[in-house]
Amino acid sequence: MKKISDSTIGRLSTYYRTLGELIEQKVQTVSSEKIADLNGITSAQVRKDLSFFGTFGKRGLGYNTVALKDEIGRILGLKQNWNVALAGIGNIGRALIDYGEFKKQGFFIKAIFDNDPQKVNSELKGLKVHHIDDVCEIAKKEKINIVIIAVPVKNAQSVIDQFIDCGIRAFLNFAPTSIKVPGDVMVKNENMSIELEALSYYLTQN
Amino acid sequence: MKKISDSTIGRLSTYYRTLGELIEQKVQTVSSEKIADLNGITSAQVRKDLSFFGTFGKRGLGYNTVALKDEIGRILGLKQNWNVALAGIGNIGRALIDYGEFKKQGFFIKAIFDNDPQKVNSELKGLKVHHIDDVCEIAKKEKINIVIIAVPVKNAQSVIDQFIDCGIRAFLNFAPTSIKVPGDVMVKNENMSIELEALSYYLTQN
Repeated sequence: MKKISDSTIGRLSTYYRTLGELIEQKVQTVSSEKIADLNGITSAQVRKDLSFFGTFGKRGLGYNTVALKDEIGRILGLKQNWNVALAGIGNIGRALIDYGEFKKQGFFIKAIFDNDPQKVNSELKGLKVHHIDDVCEIAKKEKINIVIIAVPVKNAQSVIDQFIDCGIRAFLNFAPTSIKVPGDVMVKNENMSIELEALSYYLTQN
Repeated sequence: MKKISDSTIGRLSTYYRTLGELIEQKVQTVSSEKIADLNGITSAQVRKDLSFFGTFGKRGLGYNTVALKDEIGRILGLKQNWNVALAGIGNIGRALIDYGEFKKQGFFIKAIFDNDPQKVNSELKGLKVHHIDDVCEIAKKEKINIVIIAVPVKNAQSVIDQFIDCGIRAFLNFAPTSIKVPGDVMVKNENMSIELEALSYYLTQN
């Protein structure tokens, strides 16, 4: 399979949501133009993104919403549940533990970690707080696939290294710093000020 | 000026951070290849993104890191401070109030709103909680430019409408729902499960 760009994958996630909303509205078929319009992009982009994965829909008839959502869900790996661990239970960490969108897409936080002795062994929203040094044992026990990093910048690299040593290969990083990882490990960075910058650009240019 | 795509603006934010890190490491010039490499994209993409805004750097000499960061900051509107309001002080809202990255890029939360009588008029991290019905008065007094929406899905549209009625044109929306706004209003949606889906894609395909 061709190497697919991160932006294509990000747009597939967006189409997946759009299709979900259309299905809720009982819409059975949809054109690439309509999907494009709902997301502020061109229909050529929609068709190009989908073409990487095969032929969907029929020329002139559009896409069946249910079938296309199903297919995109399969491509994105959303047909299974994922066991997620969370490292760092400060403000952001606590907000993420019961973030409804994670569960809705099949991402379940099964283990939480911190290194603060005051927090370790306490319970938070039904989950026991483990010490960060116990990652290997707990990650194995809970069959963790993905780890969310919500620790301070100064600890982010070492905490990720600990998880990598236990075989974890996928991280969502909320610490605003660049992380170095081996080639077979993927880190997605979540920096919430980037979207604000798109707004300041908009307000500056318009 | 040509219409610039959202992905280009998002990448400018990324280059801005990369340049900041290079400057911290005392790096004075950088090639498009190096910027590309640090961000996992092609150097042609970096050059294309920058070319929308003029000619930077000298052929064969690369870019001056300080000058390019400064220029991108100017393009993104980061040479000024922005006054931000936050609506909804649940878990995510509370995590955002003291999110360091916002302040670092010049986004200052100056007013917070909720509709819970238990919370209104209380104080949170030095800010008084205002009732959502007082948006116009407070937004004017605090010269608010941008509003972050962290209210439940069922309230998101009506809260955004209230702010639009007071002249606000830029929103960062954390409520996982599509929002309808007039053409001169910009809403950026922050859905933290989208990055997790890129990870599940990666784990599924590799």
